[in-house]
Amino acid sequence: MRRLLVLSALLTTAAVQAPKPLTPSEIVAQAPAVDWRTIPAEDLLLIDYQGGGRTIVQLAPQFAPVHVANIRALAGAGYWRGASVYRVQDNYVAQWGTNDEKAALPTGVVKRPPAEYTRSVRGLTIRRFPHADPYALRVGHAGGWPVAVYAGDQASLTHCYGTVGVGRDLAPDTGMGGELYAVIGHAPRHLDRNIAIVGRVVEGIEQLSALPRGTEALGFYKEGTVAKRITAVRLASALSAAERPSFQYMAETSPSFAAYLRARANRRDDFYQVPAGGVDICNAPVPVRRAPAR
Amino acid sequence: MRRLLVLSALLTTAAVQAPKPLTPSEIVAQAPAVDWRTIPAEDLLLIDYQGGGRTIVQLAPQFAPVHVANIRALAGAGYWRGASVYRVQDNYVAQWGTNDEKAALPTGVVKRPPAEYTRSVRGLTIRRFPHADPYALRVGHAGGWPVAVYAGDQASLTHCYGTVGVGRDLAPDTGMGGELYAVIGHAPRHLDRNIAIVGRVVEGIEQLSALPRGTEALGFYKEGTVAKRITAVRLASALSAAERPSFQYMAETSPSFAAYLRARANRRDDFYQVPAGGVDICNAPVPVRRAPAR
Repeated sequence: MRRLLVLSALLTTAAVQAPKPLTPSEIVAQAPAVDWRTIPAEDLLLIDYQGGGRTIVQLAPQFAPVHVANIRALAGAGYWRGASVYRVQDNYVAQWGTNDEKAALPTGVVKRPPAEYTRSVRGLTIRRFPHADPYALRVGHAGGWPVAVYAGDQASLTHCYGTVGVGRDLAPDTGMGGELYAVIGHAPRHLDRNIAIVGRVVEGIEQLSALPRGTEALGFYKEGTVAKRITAVRLASALSAAERPSFQYMAETSPSFAAYLRARANRRDDFYQVPAGGVDICNAPVPVRRAPAR
Repeated sequence: MRRLLVLSALLTTAAVQAPKPLTPSEIVAQAPAVDWRTIPAEDLLLIDYQGGGRTIVQLAPQFAPVHVANIRALAGAGYWRGASVYRVQDNYVAQWGTNDEKAALPTGVVKRPPAEYTRSVRGLTIRRFPHADPYALRVGHAGGWPVAVYAGDQASLTHCYGTVGVGRDLAPDTGMGGELYAVIGHAPRHLDRNIAIVGRVVEGIEQLSALPRGTEALGFYKEGTVAKRITAVRLASALSAAERPSFQYMAETSPSFAAYLRARANRRDDFYQVPAGGVDICNAPVPVRRAPAR
């Protein structure tokens, strides 16, 4: 009998010592340096607001090169000084910028960019996302971005929470890049392939998502009022090395990313009774972090 | 030549007169009275805030009867007078209420309700949703609610934008109902089957979604601070007929609902270049409206 008790005690100890499955946050926190890629400073757009606060957007030149070049040129020329956030529609988008048809455009800005809504899958190494998607033939990740693939080997970025796109009028307009929006609600994936996606918010989304909703149709603010004013929009590369923020994304080719996706699809924290066994691509956002101090 | 010109003019007229496909909003606006179902007054929970503003939640007794009975009893007893919204986590949830372990519970409140996270599909007439879902065997609608179906003929409501659930501690706790949350971001479907869903916000979500995000872990407000105070939580059925708001949902069995789902999956407004050909269940929320004046 005594032996049985000892055995039982050993088993209990073993059970206690069995490692608990890591949560998605723990996997991200423990991912080694080799699993992270630094985002180039010319791909970070810093939006500063009157009264403080900043939103940082990572640009996606691989997907909308002309629109992104426009945005860099507009930022470089101080085009958005004094612009505003003028539309906040609940469960949809916050929109900002300016598009003064009469004002001269800064040098290098293409007035009518091509419709960069999709691009060829050629040149993209897409790691397949292993769960169903109701919008595309398949989805996956490439270069740190969620990507949807359609017939004709066309790829597009996906409208997820925090995705940044270019406001436009009806076709043939594609948006010059002066007016941008960020998604602040459930993923409006029906916009995919219909608008130029130029990036994603990597910090400070709450500067946009927590704003009072506009009272007019489509969440626009009343004529003469704005949600907040923008004091400056600059590329991180325009700042001194000391002032410049640096961000990293988790490589989709890394073991950490694979573990992260598994954990997002199968939550095993103490809180969860039933792991889902699946996840949608917008509910497993690519981890992005501030680059750790060296 | 003249005849050709006339024919051409006729063709042009015909093209102009061809009906444009309706947008989802137009389908909802034009749906006949017979396609709507009135929500019972005892299923509407009115949350009033200090300084004005109201959030209205439709309760789902078909899915979490004991939790919903608790919520009705708590509302009836004025349990939430002076309670607060104390957690606002970006792209996740806003949470409110109170759970004073020492306070006596109102008569009729079950301290430890069963885990009403799923229920049998028996008794539900589920109209199948025709697009892929990465979380469940299949999804559909029943009685105006989005429903996911799992192995063992178990059904659950889905965590979409605006879904209301019951905060709980670790199992075996299931939440008494004193603390509730509403989803204010991308659908956290991984919570399905892990928590009691008791309803959805049908009006006034912006009273929660536009609040400043909490600065502490998980979006909690700093000790001693709150996002806003609640002055009263009442059932619509407790109000006089004159004060009582009335809402209707679009029946999933109606032609309007079928047309609405098709339009959500295939946007053909002038703005859209490419219809998606699919949609996820949380991106096609069941239309709910104020009952029109008779």
